[in-house]
Amino acid sequence: MSHTAELIAVGTELLLGSIANTDAQMISQGLSELGINVYYHTVVGDNPERVRQAVDIARNRADILITTGGLGPTCDDLTKVAIAEAFGKKLVFHEPSAQRIRDRFAAMERPVTENNYQQAMLPEGCTVLDNDWGTAPGVAFEADGTHVIMLPGPPRECEMMFRHRAMPYLQALSDGVIASRTVKTFGIGESAAEALLRDLMNALHNPTLAPYAKPTGTELRITAHAPTREEALALIAPVEQQVKEILGDRVIGVDVNSLEEVCLALLKEKGLTLGTAESCTGGLIAKLITDLPGSSAVLKGGVVSYTDSVKAGVLGVPQDLLDQYGAVSPQVAEAMARGAKQVLGCDIAVSATGIAGPDSDDRGNPVGLVYLGLAYEDQCVVKEFHAGKVARERVRRMSAHTALDLVRRYLTGLL
Amino acid sequence: MSHTAELIAVGTELLLGSIANTDAQMISQGLSELGINVYYHTVVGDNPERVRQAVDIARNRADILITTGGLGPTCDDLTKVAIAEAFGKKLVFHEPSAQRIRDRFAAMERPVTENNYQQAMLPEGCTVLDNDWGTAPGVAFEADGTHVIMLPGPPRECEMMFRHRAMPYLQALSDGVIASRTVKTFGIGESAAEALLRDLMNALHNPTLAPYAKPTGTELRITAHAPTREEALALIAPVEQQVKEILGDRVIGVDVNSLEEVCLALLKEKGLTLGTAESCTGGLIAKLITDLPGSSAVLKGGVVSYTDSVKAGVLGVPQDLLDQYGAVSPQVAEAMARGAKQVLGCDIAVSATGIAGPDSDDRGNPVGLVYLGLAYEDQCVVKEFHAGKVARERVRRMSAHTALDLVRRYLTGLL
Repeated sequence: MSHTAELIAVGTELLLGSIANTDAQMISQGLSELGINVYYHTVVGDNPERVRQAVDIARNRADILITTGGLGPTCDDLTKVAIAEAFGKKLVFHEPSAQRIRDRFAAMERPVTENNYQQAMLPEGCTVLDNDWGTAPGVAFEADGTHVIMLPGPPRECEMMFRHRAMPYLQALSDGVIASRTVKTFGIGESAAEALLRDLMNALHNPTLAPYAKPTGTELRITAHAPTREEALALIAPVEQQVKEILGDRVIGVDVNSLEEVCLALLKEKGLTLGTAESCTGGLIAKLITDLPGSSAVLKGGVVSYTDSVKAGVLGVPQDLLDQYGAVSPQVAEAMARGAKQVLGCDIAVSATGIAGPDSDDRGNPVGLVYLGLAYEDQCVVKEFHAGKVARERVRRMSAHTALDLVRRYLTGLL
Repeated sequence: MSHTAELIAVGTELLLGSIANTDAQMISQGLSELGINVYYHTVVGDNPERVRQAVDIARNRADILITTGGLGPTCDDLTKVAIAEAFGKKLVFHEPSAQRIRDRFAAMERPVTENNYQQAMLPEGCTVLDNDWGTAPGVAFEADGTHVIMLPGPPRECEMMFRHRAMPYLQALSDGVIASRTVKTFGIGESAAEALLRDLMNALHNPTLAPYAKPTGTELRITAHAPTREEALALIAPVEQQVKEILGDRVIGVDVNSLEEVCLALLKEKGLTLGTAESCTGGLIAKLITDLPGSSAVLKGGVVSYTDSVKAGVLGVPQDLLDQYGAVSPQVAEAMARGAKQVLGCDIAVSATGIAGPDSDDRGNPVGLVYLGLAYEDQCVVKEFHAGKVARERVRRMSAHTALDLVRRYLTGLL
């Protein structure tokens, strides 16, 4: 049976534009994985009357209602009260939830104020969704053919509660389980990936294959529905193999988050250390790697050589190379990488020098032209990269990712 | 007269969770500045019937309807057709818009395909909102007491169209103009700022004063309504002065975007150059500064000294300091800043060394403990900073901002 869900976010801060409704995005992705249709999102303020109206409209056009926000003491558990009223449910005291609240406050060494116990008042007969990431418990129940799920609003809490509590509840509404695997790529756009995979996508029903454009590269999500997780994964495996064959070396991994994560894992596996020499990216490559816990095991350090004097003085780039070819040149990219490898004492060094914009340089190099170097052993490769005339932020991001991809390609023998 | 607006975003990509509805956030902020209430946001897919239903619900609870998305050839100008039908308007050919489309394609040296002319079919008698940032024109009209504004969906296009086209149109609905100034702070939370400003906020009606929590620090927006912009600004000025006096040196500027922008402007003004020495922030400080165009005029460079060998070898931190006090110590923060100033040849150098987490170091320093150094002339100040046991990303961001705030304080004589 096919389900239709509607999301209602409760929070005046959304209507004032203080925050974007990222909860709705996250939940929509999950519902899409579960094969549940979403026709509407609604945002409403901290106003009982208008929450009630939004619920009444939603229950007439969807059989699954998921609310976010409006739980917890600061908003008087507004959503819970409005939903209970709309579905004619009494709120009753739930001792285990009260105990969890007591335990939580005890752990923080703070007294429980009386309004916190309001959070233990839950619709009679509901399924309590324990909240391990905050204080307000989530709630799920079925009434008059509508499934209602209430989740807290803060994005991380909402995501954990949705992934670990609401998704299993929703999965139980359908027979069988849904599993998915995501093939992550770099260097191929969504429409190009779609063109290469169109025949495969059209031929598939279970599993399905769908492309998602992400700032860091296109993702291909393969989702299967089967009686057990093992059977679902068995359906996915051959499709994953086909996708990998079609997209070739543009595939950076499966169920991985980022290029830097892939690089970090490869460096650890091979016991190699990395260093960076950055001009146009200005520290971004090092920043991306050090975003990851455990990066200190592989990143020796980096030099942001934003001026010629630092390129020459710290990295040892010969002044005559800078004079003859300019800072944005393959010669300087190579000297930066080789210099960083030596100065930082690392096994591999990656460099970036280019024009991030908005203006081109004295030599008339165009915005978006970037040279990337990779020094290893006594070798160095240089790649010329054209980001195109895009925003500064985008030139820098694309350059940093292309530099990381160079590291990945070296470490996987693709260089 | 008080207006109420409702936002309807049209786009299946929103319901699939491919993107978040950031247009709604941006428009809500603008409407809040204009003093227009927003009670609901709705998101609906590329489905004419459901768009029509969303419009029918919205027009009964708001007198201003703003749609985003569903314009342009790829979606068959879905929103325009549904809105025209809902308000009984004929779509008529608008030659100036057709000419703009021809000109735009000519500039890109591409032929105009026939479906593009559909974008020149506009509701009869409407106000055309010229789109200088994309192809599909926006539309505004009034019918049956409802003001309808249709804007394109892509976020940048939507923002430009809203700020430069829709806001003036909406402003004309009210007598007078709205002006606002935003006081940006660092080092004070929203609730602390609110506590300090509560009496002032409660005493004000025009202008109004409202705090906004941003990841980079609390903002206080002062908004005034008056017959002319000059009069509105004159109402704002004394309140701005009061806010500055109450919040003191935590105010980093008015109508500025970020700490790094403030630092860059101050460095340029004083003709001073900057350098960085980063351990736990791993390049983030340099990255933030080089995000800004023109940063090459003031940033000499930086060293990401992620390991002791780079701290000693590149920055010249004495090995015995590292041995005796450990890398996370005021002594090493000072030696890093002094070393960077010398090695990079800059006027001011800022350093950061600390525990970003998730694990503490061998010496048992807690996650979130960070030492920041600032070297200038032959002096150096060191600040101990406790980010607390928060996520790695947050420790790093707070550390980088606190380092930049140290630079700001030095440059404004607050150190």
